[in-house]
Amino acid sequence: MPTTAPPAPSQSAPPQPAPPEVPRGLKGVVVTDTVLGDVRGAEGFYHYREYSAVELAASRGFEDVWHLMFHGTLPTAEERSRFTRQTAGLRRLPAAVRDALPAVARATGGSGPLAGLRTALSLTGAAAGFRPLYDLDPEQRQADALAACAVVPTLLTALHRLGRGLAPIEPRDDLPYAANYLYMLTGEEPVPDRARAVEQYLISTVDHGFNASTFTSRVIASTGADLAACLVGAIGALSGPLHGGAPSRALDTLDEIGTPDRVDPWLREHIAAGERIMGFGHPVYRTEDPRSRLLKGIARGIGGDLVDFAVQVEARAEALLAELKPGRDLHINVEFYAGVVMELCGLPREMFTPTFAAARVVGWSANILEQAADSKIIRPSARYVGPPPPRPVPAV
Amino acid sequence: MPTTAPPAPSQSAPPQPAPPEVPRGLKGVVVTDTVLGDVRGAEGFYHYREYSAVELAASRGFEDVWHLMFHGTLPTAEERSRFTRQTAGLRRLPAAVRDALPAVARATGGSGPLAGLRTALSLTGAAAGFRPLYDLDPEQRQADALAACAVVPTLLTALHRLGRGLAPIEPRDDLPYAANYLYMLTGEEPVPDRARAVEQYLISTVDHGFNASTFTSRVIASTGADLAACLVGAIGALSGPLHGGAPSRALDTLDEIGTPDRVDPWLREHIAAGERIMGFGHPVYRTEDPRSRLLKGIARGIGGDLVDFAVQVEARAEALLAELKPGRDLHINVEFYAGVVMELCGLPREMFTPTFAAARVVGWSANILEQAADSKIIRPSARYVGPPPPRPVPAV
Repeated sequence: MPTTAPPAPSQSAPPQPAPPEVPRGLKGVVVTDTVLGDVRGAEGFYHYREYSAVELAASRGFEDVWHLMFHGTLPTAEERSRFTRQTAGLRRLPAAVRDALPAVARATGGSGPLAGLRTALSLTGAAAGFRPLYDLDPEQRQADALAACAVVPTLLTALHRLGRGLAPIEPRDDLPYAANYLYMLTGEEPVPDRARAVEQYLISTVDHGFNASTFTSRVIASTGADLAACLVGAIGALSGPLHGGAPSRALDTLDEIGTPDRVDPWLREHIAAGERIMGFGHPVYRTEDPRSRLLKGIARGIGGDLVDFAVQVEARAEALLAELKPGRDLHINVEFYAGVVMELCGLPREMFTPTFAAARVVGWSANILEQAADSKIIRPSARYVGPPPPRPVPAV
Repeated sequence: MPTTAPPAPSQSAPPQPAPPEVPRGLKGVVVTDTVLGDVRGAEGFYHYREYSAVELAASRGFEDVWHLMFHGTLPTAEERSRFTRQTAGLRRLPAAVRDALPAVARATGGSGPLAGLRTALSLTGAAAGFRPLYDLDPEQRQADALAACAVVPTLLTALHRLGRGLAPIEPRDDLPYAANYLYMLTGEEPVPDRARAVEQYLISTVDHGFNASTFTSRVIASTGADLAACLVGAIGALSGPLHGGAPSRALDTLDEIGTPDRVDPWLREHIAAGERIMGFGHPVYRTEDPRSRLLKGIARGIGGDLVDFAVQVEARAEALLAELKPGRDLHINVEFYAGVVMELCGLPREMFTPTFAAARVVGWSANILEQAADSKIIRPSARYVGPPPPRPVPAV
């Protein structure tokens, strides 16, 4: 078959302007403007739009914050009741997804709930007929985003139950987002203070600056792809060990330490060995993580031996890290008391990170909607550093 | 429940260093070094490692190029036969995936084959037990990447056939990648020159610089997530209308023009209306797209009315674009003759972009493997431009 010979690259090509030099991993490089919120690491403060996230968690419901992220304002009483009714009505799975879910649960069960959610949300977006963001107007995009967020707890709890040989539980549209999530997990209406504790955790987790999963969701959104494509990419990034957001690890550490008398020897041994103590340290905060303070207050409000033990470990770890790693400013991060709160509320440990995803999907979606309003694709460059081409292709 | 009041942000926080100013969409910003290849847009030249991609397509098989991308060298005769055997042995689906696929096909069928592939590959990665790249050594990562690439044609053809009420066809491990792909689509062994034409198209499509889907795959890989998470994100980005890579659109244009006598009036009308002519123009190439020249040669080798018509439309569109849009340098891009070649080879039009994905998965995977060898997360920043926080949260 005739093919034209490849052109030899010209030696007289005009010189390209030097690309801007940026730090590795794009650290500190501003990719976009946002009105959705920010993290002020040096001050131990983060906010959703113009409100303190911690203050929102202390005084508002999940739907209020979801409305704030999507619409830009906290809802009036009437808006809240309309928004709550609207989102509750979107919790049921499309029939084709319900039919496929047992097989999906069987195939993904061995790889953990994030791989299951990644698959099931991809499936749901396709079954619901999500179209490219680029082809939709803002109202249609928002409708897809509401549908995607509303269905995440249904998918997570259905996969969890199917994986244990239990039938999924239909969502109840008379319960708020957090309480319905706990209900679908167990089939029992949760105790109010436990439901509220989980709701406060979810609110504190909705968004947190420009992390790797949020960035991923915006890169995909910048191509104009559909909402599920963006969210599925974000879930993939969240599943990466370098992303953070794995509250079960800190709790595993508490288990490993075991008893109050072992706290000091365990910590001394592991700090001396140069190991990272799970639940301590954060790439952005140089102060105590403001989410920890909130979650510690929630945990103490519930109380019990686990809380007392966690408080002891926290105090001793802070003291020993300051003694053995002076100047490192290592404080507890969100994982530490997030794990404690979820354990106290009866969430199975393998559902800790999925629960994080059930909140963060609202933050990702708000970012995707913001990105979709821009029409500029995010498309940086790589620098070729291999041997100079073209080397002639040897004959076979 | 007691919660601690949120801290007011300190007014005396140290000033942050100004972030580096970069172009919108990170255009031209170098995110990483690579030895995998590059595009020289001004010269109409692109390469895989140090070899001209067009020269590779003219003289080598798909497995040779796959080996080159993964291992860094073109295979010796012995390496080729080992690599071909190895990858052919990975084409069968895990039993759990095979069982789930009919339900996946039913749920995703209405949203097109990329949403189906996104879901099915996510499922397959989970069923195959892909673990986070961060937890694997280079050989294990490579094994997962080989498995993922080998299975893409099987998934694509199975979903396509299931969507039409046909049983999937088991892969044949005595056929090369491209021929087996065509075989699984129809159940018939393809005519050699058609299989070779598709193989050359696939080779020409394996990689093409740092496009948005490749970048997406590397962002997810930088978190240490598993290989399926990275690929699923890339497929999502590929499905975006701004990504490019939709060869069926150019062919739809040929259909719409219809007959030779309508070429000039149709083109004049649409160019005058300011519409983009599908199959013309590329964000990087200012010359003819080197892939077009290759694919035009392949199409002419097969011949027929469609080819003659395409050649006529190309010539008239070049002339009219030069006349009506002087200085814009609009030439045919890869989509134009890629669509013609795939049509000539009997691929259904809805499989054009999936066929692109069946090649590009090798390029994405090579990029993911290269990124995984780096341990730096890709995590840029956003600039908050909303009203200054904290605004007190109003009482409910």
